[in-house]
Amino acid sequence: MKFSRIIILTFLFFISSLCFAQTTKKASKQEDVEIQKKVKHLLRQMTLDEKIAEMSQDAPANERLGIPFMKFGEGLHGLWYDGVTVYPQAIACGSTWEPELVKKMASQTALEARALNITHCYSPNLDVITGDARYGRVEESYGEDPYLVSRMGVAFIQGMQGIGKERLDKNHVISTAKHFIGYPENRRGINGGFSDMSERRLREVFLPPFEAAVKEAQVASIMPGHQDFNGVPCHMNSWLLNDVLRGELGFDGFIVSDNNDVGRLQTMHFIPKTRTEAAILGLKAGVDMDLVLGKVLPLYTYHSNILKDTLTKNPKLVKYVDLATSRILTAKYKLGLFDSKLKDVKKDTIVSKKEHQEFAYEMAKKAIVLLKNTNNLLPLDRNKIKSLAIIGPNAHEKKPANGTYSLLGGYSGLPPYYVSVLDGIKSKTEGEITINYAKGCDLGGTSKEGFEEAIAAAEKSDAVVLVVGGSRKTCGEGVDRSDVDLVGVQNDLVEAINKTGKPVIVVLINGRPLSVNYIAENIPSILETWYLGMRSGDAIADAIFGDVNPGGKLTVSFPRSVGQIPVTYLERPDFIGSGKGLYSDSDKSPLFSFGYGLSYTTFKYSEPKFEKTVIKADGSTTVSVEVTNTGSRAGDEVVQMYVRDDFASVGRYLKMLRGFERIALQPGETKTVTFKLGFDELNVLNQEMKKVVEPGTFTISVGSSSRNQDLKTAVLTVSK
Amino acid sequence: MKFSRIIILTFLFFISSLCFAQTTKKASKQEDVEIQKKVKHLLRQMTLDEKIAEMSQDAPANERLGIPFMKFGEGLHGLWYDGVTVYPQAIACGSTWEPELVKKMASQTALEARALNITHCYSPNLDVITGDARYGRVEESYGEDPYLVSRMGVAFIQGMQGIGKERLDKNHVISTAKHFIGYPENRRGINGGFSDMSERRLREVFLPPFEAAVKEAQVASIMPGHQDFNGVPCHMNSWLLNDVLRGELGFDGFIVSDNNDVGRLQTMHFIPKTRTEAAILGLKAGVDMDLVLGKVLPLYTYHSNILKDTLTKNPKLVKYVDLATSRILTAKYKLGLFDSKLKDVKKDTIVSKKEHQEFAYEMAKKAIVLLKNTNNLLPLDRNKIKSLAIIGPNAHEKKPANGTYSLLGGYSGLPPYYVSVLDGIKSKTEGEITINYAKGCDLGGTSKEGFEEAIAAAEKSDAVVLVVGGSRKTCGEGVDRSDVDLVGVQNDLVEAINKTGKPVIVVLINGRPLSVNYIAENIPSILETWYLGMRSGDAIADAIFGDVNPGGKLTVSFPRSVGQIPVTYLERPDFIGSGKGLYSDSDKSPLFSFGYGLSYTTFKYSEPKFEKTVIKADGSTTVSVEVTNTGSRAGDEVVQMYVRDDFASVGRYLKMLRGFERIALQPGETKTVTFKLGFDELNVLNQEMKKVVEPGTFTISVGSSSRNQDLKTAVLTVSK
Repeated sequence: MKFSRIIILTFLFFISSLCFAQTTKKASKQEDVEIQKKVKHLLRQMTLDEKIAEMSQDAPANERLGIPFMKFGEGLHGLWYDGVTVYPQAIACGSTWEPELVKKMASQTALEARALNITHCYSPNLDVITGDARYGRVEESYGEDPYLVSRMGVAFIQGMQGIGKERLDKNHVISTAKHFIGYPENRRGINGGFSDMSERRLREVFLPPFEAAVKEAQVASIMPGHQDFNGVPCHMNSWLLNDVLRGELGFDGFIVSDNNDVGRLQTMHFIPKTRTEAAILGLKAGVDMDLVLGKVLPLYTYHSNILKDTLTKNPKLVKYVDLATSRILTAKYKLGLFDSKLKDVKKDTIVSKKEHQEFAYEMAKKAIVLLKNTNNLLPLDRNKIKSLAIIGPNAHEKKPANGTYSLLGGYSGLPPYYVSVLDGIKSKTEGEITINYAKGCDLGGTSKEGFEEAIAAAEKSDAVVLVVGGSRKTCGEGVDRSDVDLVGVQNDLVEAINKTGKPVIVVLINGRPLSVNYIAENIPSILETWYLGMRSGDAIADAIFGDVNPGGKLTVSFPRSVGQIPVTYLERPDFIGSGKGLYSDSDKSPLFSFGYGLSYTTFKYSEPKFEKTVIKADGSTTVSVEVTNTGSRAGDEVVQMYVRDDFASVGRYLKMLRGFERIALQPGETKTVTFKLGFDELNVLNQEMKKVVEPGTFTISVGSSSRNQDLKTAVLTVSK
Repeated sequence: MKFSRIIILTFLFFISSLCFAQTTKKASKQEDVEIQKKVKHLLRQMTLDEKIAEMSQDAPANERLGIPFMKFGEGLHGLWYDGVTVYPQAIACGSTWEPELVKKMASQTALEARALNITHCYSPNLDVITGDARYGRVEESYGEDPYLVSRMGVAFIQGMQGIGKERLDKNHVISTAKHFIGYPENRRGINGGFSDMSERRLREVFLPPFEAAVKEAQVASIMPGHQDFNGVPCHMNSWLLNDVLRGELGFDGFIVSDNNDVGRLQTMHFIPKTRTEAAILGLKAGVDMDLVLGKVLPLYTYHSNILKDTLTKNPKLVKYVDLATSRILTAKYKLGLFDSKLKDVKKDTIVSKKEHQEFAYEMAKKAIVLLKNTNNLLPLDRNKIKSLAIIGPNAHEKKPANGTYSLLGGYSGLPPYYVSVLDGIKSKTEGEITINYAKGCDLGGTSKEGFEEAIAAAEKSDAVVLVVGGSRKTCGEGVDRSDVDLVGVQNDLVEAINKTGKPVIVVLINGRPLSVNYIAENIPSILETWYLGMRSGDAIADAIFGDVNPGGKLTVSFPRSVGQIPVTYLERPDFIGSGKGLYSDSDKSPLFSFGYGLSYTTFKYSEPKFEKTVIKADGSTTVSVEVTNTGSRAGDEVVQMYVRDDFASVGRYLKMLRGFERIALQPGETKTVTFKLGFDELNVLNQEMKKVVEPGTFTISVGSSSRNQDLKTAVLTVSK
């Protein structure tokens, strides 16, 4: 194709997308006006009691006025429900570095939700993890970088809510971005712990994913965090919710409280003296719906017991009730709930249909991260390996009597089946390789009774797959730890198995980055798999035998020890960042870095080249790099682009991720990857908290991880 | 004495102090006017070069104009100089809970400084330690509480600078409060690490000691911190230095940079592109003096190489130079340097005179904290003990070939002698008790060669004093650790000695709170002594044999493990504070709490009583408690008063120390301790960052530590 043709086609495509966007926007505006009319009409007919009821969790049906029920769900990686498809946990989704996968997962989740009459999901979690692996909810996040979390968040919301004409149609549901804002900056790595930060940090690190969620993905719902900002709890923080979220970002959906958090203004933050006052504070700040799971404490909710008397006495407050009620009614209209009937759930065939399970498997394969592979021990050659030991507490899990599998991570539904590593390898190698399975030890506890059997299994095998890590019992919401090493006697098991002298592959299944020093130093091959969902074992077996070439990269830094926490690539040029500050007893670098991950093949990067090396502050350019697969296998590479404004009017992080692309390369193949460099990539928040591009030089780094040794740099000049 | 007489006498005293204050103030104002005239006169005669020179470290003499030299020193616990008195390290000063001791120490330090021609000291360190024991400079602070640090800071500054007519007279010197502000909130416990916080936290936790230093103690100099606030480095942060420090607090002294920090605006913060621009930013923000220790990099300073050309080209900047120069000249006038001659240092007899050494000993005795004393093992009975083993790497230290003793802590001068625990016990028990000394092991390293000898020493003795901990080699500025347990094989040594079955007393000599779990669980008696100064061993021997009854209390919380960090009593009522948040693998409480410390006797507290149980928001009252010595020995008790505003318009800490008093009680004696409860004690910083007393109830707790079980509470009502 000639260059001129490409230009013409691109131009036509651009014009047509513009027209489409315009049409959609107009349609949507007209529709909005109609909905608002209907909402106003309903509001006029509603009693105060009915309005208050509307603002409660699960926004109940109102038979008198024909208002339908709106049912909530959780959908972080598939629904939190029985019989559903369970996809890889969020941190594993992050490791794919492929937002399109997350988008498709969320759209499938929306389909399953609709089939179950669920129409709003309290997902995704847009918390940026700030280096504290003690925090059990690390696994619910896409990682430690604001840009990466933004891209994944936008993809999730677009998938779940739909875009354009499909937005919130019968195949899509409302997505709730949480927790607004700064929730993971808790000082002790404890869920709901005291969080504190400057406005700058809030805006630079925590706000970007929410800004993208609102502006790019038009997220329809937001959930505030349990904590406060500058002494004012998020659930009554009018500056955060009204000025920043609705005002600056332009959010026009509804705000749903986190569980019990309106009540907690009184019972945890000790600000209002009564539940009534708490409800008024929440209302005034714009919390539209009062979520209380289980409703064990009805007094906590915007319940008529609390609010009605007050509202009757002080009618000025009713305008807040009207606003909240109208936002929820608007959501119901947009979801089309007024026009639809509840489905018969039991007969539905959409929930966890084969296609969804297959896609969960595809995602799992993309999420695996190869952390180490000395002498190319991996992949194992099926023709040479005659027997394989599969050892470890995480190698297999039977269907539990209650709840769901512990190896799927937090907020997991119960899938129709779960493929463990043992299952996956067995089914792949059936009839070819002898499998010697031994659990070795429990995940927790001190018993080494199973070691003998495990050592025997290793000794009679050609190689060992040793599956250790954590589970929902050692990680997840409310399971924070003061130690981030392997729990129980797992380290001893690894050492014992390693001493057999057999080639050992460690497969990590876990929710938080672990300080696995012994493994990192002594085991030749390591796969980090997080929680890969219902098809975990199939994907891991593929990676072990080379049917999949791992191409995922870490999105969180691994600490060398809990004493090094917080550990993140997002460091400031302080005594640490500048290399002066050190612990006297430990290396300051992470055990494994953000963006890091190996492959069964190798990649070569060219020097990065700019389209223009000098641009104006309001201009833009691109940076391109050629990446070549220099090995003998096809493989994926995640090309990362980091920006550093060399000198600016305020302190900055050493570098910040501003672009990434996952590419697939055949042996010998070269692809050019191009990243935009404009306002979004180059701006800093100046002393007045305004985003500006400041003239000067910018160090642009492109490469395979956040580590300096994995990056090639070029300097861009921004002139006045 | 009749009540009426007391009233009359109190009244007279009040009037006379008022007159005195008035006179002093007038004299001081008149004097100020005269000094300003002289300064202006000098400024007119100075060349630009001379002005710039004046702003440099050690503000040099100007022979042409007869401007004298102003020499700096460090004086945290005695001067950082050879031959001086070395007092207990700041954290041990804190443990005395007796500001008058700190005041006297600082006044003696000032005398020694004047004898050495030093006239401004970069002390005290008013950093509030926020629960991170990894940070090596924990030992330089008075502790984790803003109020306690304020009281100690004011005492130090008043002692060093003098008050009233004595202020900055020939027996006193300028004190520098540092590091302004929020320096210890570094995210990884690393000196100079990235620090981030909300304005609220800055004002509630870090500002109070500086506010007290300026308003109560008229501190004459302030040093900013290496870090930034909200992205703007302290050394160019005009909001912090001009608006808050000079504007709000009314600071009128000079600001001296921390070492190299004006230059670091360029080389660490990467804000200005040149050193010249860095100098201008520092100047404009009000950094009057550019400290560069060693002057190895003259380009970093406000040196004529940098500034002169710029100033000549841009004469508008000269007003900043004039302001800075005039502040330094004013300091020189106030110090009387224009009227005095440099002393002949070698002949001086004031430096470390006997009286000062005796006072260092008195302070040391007051600083010892008894952490555990099962079955009253301590004090040892000199009549029953015939032989005593003294074991451990910290039991003795010989005079080093270079520098000073490592067991005196950071910023220690070299005293004429140092009394180790071995020295102290030997000299106390000479001829009575056989001492079996064995080092056991080095502080660091892995060798257990000395264990055998140590075990033998223990086995042939009636009891063991086991001295372990840290030293300047494991703690202090630039010595941050990712682990806070005992270093080297010390834990093994403790276990080995404990296994002998002999009664063991552990004496801790160290600079940071250590996670000494084995010791806390298994050793019957524990003394925390921090670094007690040149007479350490004498004081510790006194405590061991009961000539001193320990009465100190901890001013920092001890973590159970590094994974629990930060640990402080200053918690918010979040999921942790409310008891909901827990690590799944560890107790959330500290190993030892803020305010905790035992005694050889016991104390009983009455219920706290208010003078008035209901006050107006602008009123005040008192809370009193009777404390009785219920044991058979005389002893000291530190009575602590904590305030909690039960409900307020903003989030607060669970409790905050607002009063304390150390009292001495004979057996059976009762004393009434009374604390004021008024604006200073009851205010909160409302959402507009204004200090207000909000009507409602206040839980007032009085007792022997910050632990709830050690406190008795009463509820005060503030009416509208």
